[in-house]
Amino acid sequence: MDKVNLNEKFDKFSRHWDPKIVGELNGQHVKLVKFSGSFIWHKHDIEDEMFFVVRGNFIMHYRDKSIVLNEGEFIIVPHGIEHKPEAKDEVHIMLFEPASTINTGNTPGSMTVESPDWI
Amino acid sequence: MDKVNLNEKFDKFSRHWDPKIVGELNGQHVKLVKFSGSFIWHKHDIEDEMFFVVRGNFIMHYRDKSIVLNEGEFIIVPHGIEHKPEAKDEVHIMLFEPASTINTGNTPGSMTVESPDWI
Repeated sequence: MDKVNLNEKFDKFSRHWDPKIVGELNGQHVKLVKFSGSFIWHKHDIEDEMFFVVRGNFIMHYRDKSIVLNEGEFIIVPHGIEHKPEAKDEVHIMLFEPASTINTGNTPGSMTVESPDWI
Repeated sequence: MDKVNLNEKFDKFSRHWDPKIVGELNGQHVKLVKFSGSFIWHKHDIEDEMFFVVRGNFIMHYRDKSIVLNEGEFIIVPHGIEHKPEAKDEVHIMLFEPASTINTGNTPGSMTVESPDWI
């Protein structure tokens, strides 16, 4: 019931591709993450994911198109759809997704974060 | 799978306290709403609600305290908790909440919007 200030939370971590939980409601998590560089191709079999750009910009690649997202824009990636985020420079993202969501979906590996920390 | 630009969507409506749907994922809606003035006391028996300030500021009143929210801040109101938003000047809000959520919760009346429009 207390408020959350996004910039204060973003100041608490620096590692890229390492999502942090900042809120929970209705079985969903609100997460913050910093992207820089290229992630891996993956999909989520069950969970839809929302990416909201708080600062900066990035490209969401699908297999058949790529979409540039700027500050104040969001995109919803439906479950089952392969995607790969890429950021030329650091970008600050707010994620909204089911608490069950693992960042690397169906392609676990070195970038997988099984249990993100609360900050 | 296409992106949504919040400011472009906010430009599409002007009525206060009249939420518009701009996204859906995992049974949840992403809504935009403009507040100005005072809403009514209400609660939601089932749904938790998240209020994210895109522009401006407002006060979330609970029965035992009030919290000022500024741009880039959010608050999650758990189900069952009475609350009343108040905005001295117009504020632009992004809401995350279950698709079943009715804006006035347990106190339906003239401000109720049963079926928000998609924009």
